[in-house]
Amino acid sequence: MNSQGQLRVPVVFVTNAGNILQHSKAQELSALLGCKVDADQVILSHSPMKLFSKYHEKRMLVSGQGPVLENARGLGFRNVVTMDELRMAFPLLDMVDLERRPKTTSPSLPSDKQFRTCWLAFPVLSRRAAGRCEPLPRNDFPRIEGVLLLGEPVRWETSLQLIMDVLLSNGSPGTSLATAPYPHLPVLASNMDLLWMAEAKMPRFGHGTFLLCLETIYQKVTGKDLRYEGLMGKPSILTYQYAEELLQRQAERRGWAAPIQKLYAVGDNPMSDVYGANLFHQYLQKATRDGAPELGAGDPRRQRPSASQSCVSILVCTGVYNPRDPQSTEPLLGGEEPPFHGHRDFCFSSGLMEASHVVKDVHEAVQLVFRKEGWAWE
Amino acid sequence: MNSQGQLRVPVVFVTNAGNILQHSKAQELSALLGCKVDADQVILSHSPMKLFSKYHEKRMLVSGQGPVLENARGLGFRNVVTMDELRMAFPLLDMVDLERRPKTTSPSLPSDKQFRTCWLAFPVLSRRAAGRCEPLPRNDFPRIEGVLLLGEPVRWETSLQLIMDVLLSNGSPGTSLATAPYPHLPVLASNMDLLWMAEAKMPRFGHGTFLLCLETIYQKVTGKDLRYEGLMGKPSILTYQYAEELLQRQAERRGWAAPIQKLYAVGDNPMSDVYGANLFHQYLQKATRDGAPELGAGDPRRQRPSASQSCVSILVCTGVYNPRDPQSTEPLLGGEEPPFHGHRDFCFSSGLMEASHVVKDVHEAVQLVFRKEGWAWE
Repeated sequence: MNSQGQLRVPVVFVTNAGNILQHSKAQELSALLGCKVDADQVILSHSPMKLFSKYHEKRMLVSGQGPVLENARGLGFRNVVTMDELRMAFPLLDMVDLERRPKTTSPSLPSDKQFRTCWLAFPVLSRRAAGRCEPLPRNDFPRIEGVLLLGEPVRWETSLQLIMDVLLSNGSPGTSLATAPYPHLPVLASNMDLLWMAEAKMPRFGHGTFLLCLETIYQKVTGKDLRYEGLMGKPSILTYQYAEELLQRQAERRGWAAPIQKLYAVGDNPMSDVYGANLFHQYLQKATRDGAPELGAGDPRRQRPSASQSCVSILVCTGVYNPRDPQSTEPLLGGEEPPFHGHRDFCFSSGLMEASHVVKDVHEAVQLVFRKEGWAWE
Repeated sequence: MNSQGQLRVPVVFVTNAGNILQHSKAQELSALLGCKVDADQVILSHSPMKLFSKYHEKRMLVSGQGPVLENARGLGFRNVVTMDELRMAFPLLDMVDLERRPKTTSPSLPSDKQFRTCWLAFPVLSRRAAGRCEPLPRNDFPRIEGVLLLGEPVRWETSLQLIMDVLLSNGSPGTSLATAPYPHLPVLASNMDLLWMAEAKMPRFGHGTFLLCLETIYQKVTGKDLRYEGLMGKPSILTYQYAEELLQRQAERRGWAAPIQKLYAVGDNPMSDVYGANLFHQYLQKATRDGAPELGAGDPRRQRPSASQSCVSILVCTGVYNPRDPQSTEPLLGGEEPPFHGHRDFCFSSGLMEASHVVKDVHEAVQLVFRKEGWAWE
């Protein structure tokens, strides 16, 4: 920072959190760092969804927690349905919790089922063969046209069930189609972290674990793969492109003549931070060499081509990564290669998980960059 | 039934339900059928766990809903820990629900983190890098020695997380082991139904969907397969052996001289009822031909060898199976072969899913059996 307390260079803070508002996260960071962090310097896992304007007028079912509606609207989505609204509109869908089932589904005693015949050695009954009543048809609930997965919901069974119902019914979950549509409705998801470090000794499930459940259930039920129209959050290139866009705007506001060419990415998580920065670096190098890739007209990445030529990854030891035990966060089984915890749509690559630099903490990371850039340390 | 209102032959009712008490299910059936069904004629999905005596003194974490504790104790388990008890004992484990997190984990402001350095273009922060405090060690909570999965729980994220913590920590979830044990702690599970028909037009998730999530998460995190010490409920052979045992006891109480040789299994679900009956039939035929398989001393199947020689499957059309549209319950994608919805540990076999007989309803099923056995219809 300079003597006026302002940052000397463009800075963004990229987190995979999503169940929080941008300005709340900015306040948290400001308090932690002792300097003012603006909301528009904060990139949450779903922030790049602002670029997906072709879905902003569509009726989207949103899954998440905390300020879900506010986040969805802040991203530009103007027609949003929450899980609770859907559950209330179609009360026969969310059946796992015995206490939340509608009272009309308790076993009834239709008189035509009173048999006086003899039962043989092995009658088996389906759990609900008796007492079935046709659900009331619902034709005043507009069809859902897509799904937004913004962060870990509560009661995963409810969200998983309702999302499946929406996908299999092509947006009208009170109905049943003979053939489920494929490709299914568009699904935009953010934050694919399988695990993250909280206070407990072992890492906790992240949104990536929820996505894993959804993908697996979809595959098992339909025999096909769930496909994302957009999957963002580190290490997705989309997130880094979005971050670069924000940094270029900061540079423009400072009156910088030339665009930023070199990026430094400081993080503590090899799988999301380092992998992501290195993947983006690969992408930038290729674009510099071969030109930017061809993109379709509606592609959210068509904001402006990347001007940067490199993205250098710097790993700190104050978080997930522990240099005394590089795989300390996940217990290995018998000393073999650790299993790949990245998302299904990303490949394991030991090269991508290796940071260009490993330093003690953020302070050392900043010093390192200053040295490399030949800047004076004030 | 005879003129005294008693059943003429041994009868058991085998359901994959598990979040209910045996006598409650017996009362439901009695009311539905208009004849008295005793609790010991009802086999719930977990009833065969009564045979797993080697685990009855072990400290078992139990997952499920409704009368979970009562069911576990009724099965013979004398040292049971519920999910809620575990969650209260280790409050840092269940972190998905923002509102249930302990207040001590809100972001704190350690003074040594107040930087006044300059941040470069791309700092990234782990979601919980700040505010980490070591959890209080817990040494008064006896180690867990196994896991019972009795039926769908509520808040799947909580059960999935805690079960994983128990398995990876070898029963002491407040700790973290460098190497997770493998084989892991014993896991007994009942009811592998992926889906079941409730009132909604499309089938609902069953306990099999929960198991699928758990198996997939375990595989992703550790790279190894979750293995069950016992997996029961239709179509598991264990359930049919247990049912046969109960039928033989009914026959003995009636003073029948010869053991039962022929079983008939009437059901509405091709995947659990028909497949299960046919699988058991295969097993019986093989045992008749080659003799009963060798079993270890502690094997729960060593009650008495099967006397029956056949198990005939009869499919009714009043439930899951609909003859007008044999795959009506699960929408197909584009008319291909339906995907296999059986559990991972069972193989797809079109032969096993074909019932020996298909009839309209249970009444016709009973008439069919009477005709085959040459009994008079009273």
